[in-house]
Amino acid sequence: MRQYALECKDEEKINRFLTSSKTGYLGMSDNGAPYVIPLNYVWWNGVIYFHGAAEGRKIDILSKNPQACFTVSEEFGTMADPIPAMTDTAFMSVIIFGKAHPVTELSEATGAMQVMLDKYVPGYYHTALSGAHVERYRSSLGSKTLVFALTPVNLTAKENKLDTTKTYYKGRTSKMDAK
Amino acid sequence: MRQYALECKDEEKINRFLTSSKTGYLGMSDNGAPYVIPLNYVWWNGVIYFHGAAEGRKIDILSKNPQACFTVSEEFGTMADPIPAMTDTAFMSVIIFGKAHPVTELSEATGAMQVMLDKYVPGYYHTALSGAHVERYRSSLGSKTLVFALTPVNLTAKENKLDTTKTYYKGRTSKMDAK
Repeated sequence: MRQYALECKDEEKINRFLTSSKTGYLGMSDNGAPYVIPLNYVWWNGVIYFHGAAEGRKIDILSKNPQACFTVSEEFGTMADPIPAMTDTAFMSVIIFGKAHPVTELSEATGAMQVMLDKYVPGYYHTALSGAHVERYRSSLGSKTLVFALTPVNLTAKENKLDTTKTYYKGRTSKMDAK
Repeated sequence: MRQYALECKDEEKINRFLTSSKTGYLGMSDNGAPYVIPLNYVWWNGVIYFHGAAEGRKIDILSKNPQACFTVSEEFGTMADPIPAMTDTAFMSVIIFGKAHPVTELSEATGAMQVMLDKYVPGYYHTALSGAHVERYRSSLGSKTLVFALTPVNLTAKENKLDTTKTYYKGRTSKMDAK
């Protein structure tokens, strides 16, 4: 990723990007040791929601240090250049800082899980998720599942647009691109 | 991501996965505040290499606290189930812990950058990267680019295989899957 990628200030574009991307990377800090895990998530009412077991390393770390970084990035192709240092990647990324907390309100947790089902399996269920189902929700490990919320204190987006004249494809060579 | 995903111990599979995946997520800890950035990287001789500006937040944090977590994950589809809590994602992920340091040996940095070009633009260049080029390598911001190495102290891989009978597709409904 190149440093000169322009900061993206387009709020609607950022919302679309966070709404449609499938995987986010939650960064935590365990006594100074970083820990990053991939997660399904939803971006709902300006908040990142994800879920996870009520027991385990994630909840252990977050209960001691709720500071979190949530990063979402998508890659749109490699751009080739006869100068090796100019080889570049097209991408969009959003980095969010804030504190991650378990959601205690059942209605909020149920709403977030509904938005998650609508995102990952749209149209699959014919009825809305019930609060009772969420309350009973248990992972196969036998421990309860929690819904977490991360409200952004800081959000930055970067974008490096694809220059389609430079898109790398198999068979493209620097000789073809030499001026 | 579900907790019951089996730990993957297949070293060859892990090597293939780390070699072919395109984006890694570097987690750092800045006085207890996590920071996660997406990066192009290579997995070469059992070491993660990536590059970045010699000035900026990444090098500032790593020079104070080189502890790093490098996470790579790929998603292979959503698995639908009439029971909402059983909705699941197929994925493979690798989480690496270790310390990230700038590479000081020019030959090692050149080798890593060559492997990076071979990964992202295979066959594009007709000549190998010269050490002189790497030494002159400068980003558009005018600061030198550094190559970083992260040697794993701990590496864990998880895998949740795709059950193709449950793959979600547009139009699939829970009624079709009801027993």
